[in-house]
Amino acid sequence: MGFWEKVRARWSTANTLVCVGLDPDYERIAPALAAASGTAPPPEDGILAFNRAIIEATVDLAAAFKPQIAHYAALGEGGLRALQATLRHLQTHYPEVPVILDAKRNDIGSTAARYATEVFEVFGADAVTVSPYLGGDSLQPFLDRADRGVFILCRTSNPGARDLQDLPVGSDGRPLYQVVAQLAAERWNTHGNVGLVVGATYPDELRAVRALVGDLPFLVPGVGAQGGDVEAAVRSGQDRGGAGLLINSSRGILYASSGADFAAAARRAAQELRDAINACRSCPSGH
Amino acid sequence: MGFWEKVRARWSTANTLVCVGLDPDYERIAPALAAASGTAPPPEDGILAFNRAIIEATVDLAAAFKPQIAHYAALGEGGLRALQATLRHLQTHYPEVPVILDAKRNDIGSTAARYATEVFEVFGADAVTVSPYLGGDSLQPFLDRADRGVFILCRTSNPGARDLQDLPVGSDGRPLYQVVAQLAAERWNTHGNVGLVVGATYPDELRAVRALVGDLPFLVPGVGAQGGDVEAAVRSGQDRGGAGLLINSSRGILYASSGADFAAAARRAAQELRDAINACRSCPSGH
Repeated sequence: MGFWEKVRARWSTANTLVCVGLDPDYERIAPALAAASGTAPPPEDGILAFNRAIIEATVDLAAAFKPQIAHYAALGEGGLRALQATLRHLQTHYPEVPVILDAKRNDIGSTAARYATEVFEVFGADAVTVSPYLGGDSLQPFLDRADRGVFILCRTSNPGARDLQDLPVGSDGRPLYQVVAQLAAERWNTHGNVGLVVGATYPDELRAVRALVGDLPFLVPGVGAQGGDVEAAVRSGQDRGGAGLLINSSRGILYASSGADFAAAARRAAQELRDAINACRSCPSGH
Repeated sequence: MGFWEKVRARWSTANTLVCVGLDPDYERIAPALAAASGTAPPPEDGILAFNRAIIEATVDLAAAFKPQIAHYAALGEGGLRALQATLRHLQTHYPEVPVILDAKRNDIGSTAARYATEVFEVFGADAVTVSPYLGGDSLQPFLDRADRGVFILCRTSNPGARDLQDLPVGSDGRPLYQVVAQLAAERWNTHGNVGLVVGATYPDELRAVRALVGDLPFLVPGVGAQGGDVEAAVRSGQDRGGAGLLINSSRGILYASSGADFAAAARRAAQELRDAINACRSCPSGH
């Protein structure tokens, strides 16, 4: 099954739009692990143990998992081994749940192909996030992997997003992020494997992008710790079938408790998010 | 010494603007290594041996070295170990020659800080390339490292650069890459550690950026294999002191010969590039 088939199956059979962000901060997880098991293992083992506990606790509520690679790479080799082991764990035990490697890669063609190898071969991810600044040819090596998902940054959830993404472009003064949305939908999606990253913190922008790109799916960061409102995000971003969204929460789920009950608390947080999302969907069963 | 002090010292004392790109492709280097030493070592050792040979052959001609991380990451852990060992080799033997890790990283603030740790701590690079699409706050964790260089993608050397970077912005229809150049020079360079990536393949754009940003230094890819003209790049991009450029060549130096003489051939290619550059500088000694 390709990435998008997996996602659509999760949307309908598991009835969830929740994406669980696996961005472990060792400083924050070590106390929780120590409380739960008596000792905090060293970073590489600790991160893997933490991720496995979060995965077990939330997998039936997850439409996808999304590890952010910088959290692992900042720890060096051991961190990257923990990331690889996390993906292997998911592939072995939950092959039906897709994994998006949030890497925001980009480079010119021949080098972008190396990044595609890193993401899809070395880590075996089902999908990746990429930056559009270098243009279509820089995205091609990712787009050419028709069985993998490619989420292109469009309107991000951070305040600085306005520096470039909101700039008025061309004779009609359309903001740059809308130009990116249209390029993605009309020129870059020849294999039908493109999605967009559109932050929950700006529901008007989410609505504007949805109006431009039909049912193209969105990865939506920014609910929870970043302050995005779930109801506004769902109502502004859902597609005609009441789906089309992967709404990501990382810190809100991972750090729901810093005690021994961290996994149970993560489950409750994921459940609340799923239910809050489903309550606003125009067609909650995803049909 | 900070990154820019090292660069300025190289420009003046070594009288070179050449940046040697360390982007080893194992398929291409294995035959050269085998020809030179009888056997081709496995990738991790082979890449390190190749890089060391290239470094020894070109270091007195190099203003900087620029490994592109995807070439290492695509090989997994072993590739990243070879990259780390290459940087350690440079830091130990040639601490006066700065290293730019070409990673084109970007993410929102808290995650960008992790990428900064990856680049500056895990790999110990002196400088990094970053993408501006997410705006100023995403660059801040890099910019805050005043002793390190931050090269912001401005006008890249690939054909697809025009998709976003050339779009006319605002009431005066200035292309986006010029807006990025001005943001970089006027708003983001508070620590004086910013440079721009401007491709050699579009000398008119190079000239336009130079006119906007005073003596802000440029990292210039695109000569050699990508077809950029050295003379046009130097005449269009140099600063008032006849410097201000790091002109990168990767394949043109690394693969100057595929035989046992690959290191000597790399030296000749670097020397020719240095001389071709210096012949066009308005003030070749860098004063």
